[in-house]
Amino acid sequence: MTSTHWTLAERAAKMNPSVIREILKVTERPGIISFAGGLPSSKTFPVAEFEAACAKVLKDDPAGALQYAASEGYGPLRELVAQQLGAQSAAAGVPWKVDPNQILITTGSQQGLDLVAKILIDARSKVLVESPTYLGAVMAFTPMEPNVVSVASDEDGVDIADLASKSDGARFLYVLPNFQNPTGRSMNEARRAALSAEAARSGLPLMEDNPYGDLWFDQAPPAPLTARNPEGGIYLGSFSKVLAPGLRMGFMVAPKAVYPKLLQAKQAADLHSPSFNQRLIFEVMQGGFLDRHVPTIRSLYKAQRDAMLEALAQHFPNAQSSPDTSLTWNTPAGGMFLWARLPAGMNAVDLLPHAVDKGVAFVPGAPFYADHGDPRTMRLSFVTPSVEEIHRGVAALAAAIQYQQGA
Amino acid sequence: MTSTHWTLAERAAKMNPSVIREILKVTERPGIISFAGGLPSSKTFPVAEFEAACAKVLKDDPAGALQYAASEGYGPLRELVAQQLGAQSAAAGVPWKVDPNQILITTGSQQGLDLVAKILIDARSKVLVESPTYLGAVMAFTPMEPNVVSVASDEDGVDIADLASKSDGARFLYVLPNFQNPTGRSMNEARRAALSAEAARSGLPLMEDNPYGDLWFDQAPPAPLTARNPEGGIYLGSFSKVLAPGLRMGFMVAPKAVYPKLLQAKQAADLHSPSFNQRLIFEVMQGGFLDRHVPTIRSLYKAQRDAMLEALAQHFPNAQSSPDTSLTWNTPAGGMFLWARLPAGMNAVDLLPHAVDKGVAFVPGAPFYADHGDPRTMRLSFVTPSVEEIHRGVAALAAAIQYQQGA
Repeated sequence: MTSTHWTLAERAAKMNPSVIREILKVTERPGIISFAGGLPSSKTFPVAEFEAACAKVLKDDPAGALQYAASEGYGPLRELVAQQLGAQSAAAGVPWKVDPNQILITTGSQQGLDLVAKILIDARSKVLVESPTYLGAVMAFTPMEPNVVSVASDEDGVDIADLASKSDGARFLYVLPNFQNPTGRSMNEARRAALSAEAARSGLPLMEDNPYGDLWFDQAPPAPLTARNPEGGIYLGSFSKVLAPGLRMGFMVAPKAVYPKLLQAKQAADLHSPSFNQRLIFEVMQGGFLDRHVPTIRSLYKAQRDAMLEALAQHFPNAQSSPDTSLTWNTPAGGMFLWARLPAGMNAVDLLPHAVDKGVAFVPGAPFYADHGDPRTMRLSFVTPSVEEIHRGVAALAAAIQYQQGA
Repeated sequence: MTSTHWTLAERAAKMNPSVIREILKVTERPGIISFAGGLPSSKTFPVAEFEAACAKVLKDDPAGALQYAASEGYGPLRELVAQQLGAQSAAAGVPWKVDPNQILITTGSQQGLDLVAKILIDARSKVLVESPTYLGAVMAFTPMEPNVVSVASDEDGVDIADLASKSDGARFLYVLPNFQNPTGRSMNEARRAALSAEAARSGLPLMEDNPYGDLWFDQAPPAPLTARNPEGGIYLGSFSKVLAPGLRMGFMVAPKAVYPKLLQAKQAADLHSPSFNQRLIFEVMQGGFLDRHVPTIRSLYKAQRDAMLEALAQHFPNAQSSPDTSLTWNTPAGGMFLWARLPAGMNAVDLLPHAVDKGVAFVPGAPFYADHGDPRTMRLSFVTPSVEEIHRGVAALAAAIQYQQGA
């Protein structure tokens, strides 16, 4: 008897466990205050509304809700999403007439990344990403073996000159314009206009990922990039941050040039996203629920961001005057994350175990870069700990940094 | 302004809409009796149990059920699946100690096909399939650009000599041993033993897909192939046919040689399958619900299979004596489908519009073959129409065949 010859595909050698998951294993200890999570606060889940929706969906049309369904998604949900996108974009000053037939319901917006990778990436295709970028997107692209190229980025988004120098032959630019993961950064209107103009000049397709856009604190972000040229981009949206991630529901808006192939990839991947979940999301959303619900998420997260900014200012009073010897950080205008940078010479990966000893966890920033990561950076989530925990956690972080600086 | 340069990946050119979907467009007419569907009967969905499970899950641990979760799947569900597989296999005479850590919960068993394709298929890799085989599997493999090779198959499964002549260098054999889609065929014990021996001889990995195995009519099928050599195969299971497909819940059992890569592919594909749905399935299943519920599905489907066999015997009395001038068919021992063959010279694709005119639809068999399809074959599902509709539908099929034969 021969032992079985398992021969892995070449691409499998490039697929690796999430570096971040491995790093975070040291943080799995009781009592640790975690700024490391990428989870929305479970306090924001509309549990009573989901309960009512379950009962209604199973009463009104159990056979439909529990049966196989179309790969495109549940019609009424596609219409509702199209209306909401159109209304939001118009309110931001850029009319966008979204055809429900261009919407594909996905199993979380993560699946949208997988489908796009399948139909747009050949081995060695150039794919452009922000610097840093969402690690889960790079993990979704990796099985199709792209050449991932980082475009220089600052607090306002991608650097247009650097983009122009790299866009030739690229399959697309993957970009998170609103409260980006991991940095919390947003693209302002001027940068969006410049990016749209540059994409139009070079013919570069944009893949716009917008899981956090509704979580703004003081004012809604500028209109989506895709609204400015719907034939030139794919837009990914999610219900995970405004309703609940555990239903794994997202969507994509795609132009006619690519929609049929995305649909075929979707059908081959999982036939369709759960019919039951699509109807639950529709039932909860219809009648303007998000207009009442999302403001409560915004105010919770804003209060916690404020607490984190206050605690940081208190524990690192020299950030502005001596950015080389102090922790420094940005001020995200929404979303879930703040981006911080350690004093010169320090390394967030090395700091992490000491921080955990002091009682706080974070995610080192380097793994979020597709090329040379800045080892001083870290991502701090402010959405799951309480205000009191945020203060204690920042104090613990300051103590760990002080300890490392003294060492 | 340049128009956007959408460059599709080379694999996208090979991805096409389901031939069957296109064919079935002619059947979308009110009043047609459909033997064409691949859907379970919605009469079998345990709606009250799902209602109770929704309420319980959202009451007991709403934060857990609605939050992000581990890519591997919900622990208690993985344990329950491991127990049930072990018990079923032992009852069939082959002990199989399934470690819950080898179980990966998937978004329908269709996703298992996508994940396996990603980690085991390179462009031009040889992949073996039955003849005919499940079209959705070929569609899931296609984006990875395999060379799909058909192994000759008969009523008892794959032809072992033909398999032996083709297995050299193949990445795996994809096989549905129980009540196969599209043919309703099952592998008997002797053929399973021979296939296991041949796989052990050549080191060929088996990918065993078992969505229909619980739907047996008179006796449970022989033990799974994977139980006979757990290190040599990947087993795919589904909750779609015993509970409901609209939750999109399936699972795979994979050996240590491939599990970590499948897990990474899963994480990149959709992070994890819906936490809420996994808990619903667990709540409904625990306490032995399937032991009470599945027998009701079996007896419903068996009665409808019997009605179809009776109607066929009545309308095609010369099937045994003159198989070249009559419709002929097999007698599936479970599942959802029966496989029939038209008289010599006839073509199921050509017949379909005439059958629809007479009021009945079916799926032509040729698209289910990875190579030269038998144009006389057709798949008849007996699970969604009533007994009365089955009789009327077979009469209409007979009238259409008679009309074509007279033409």
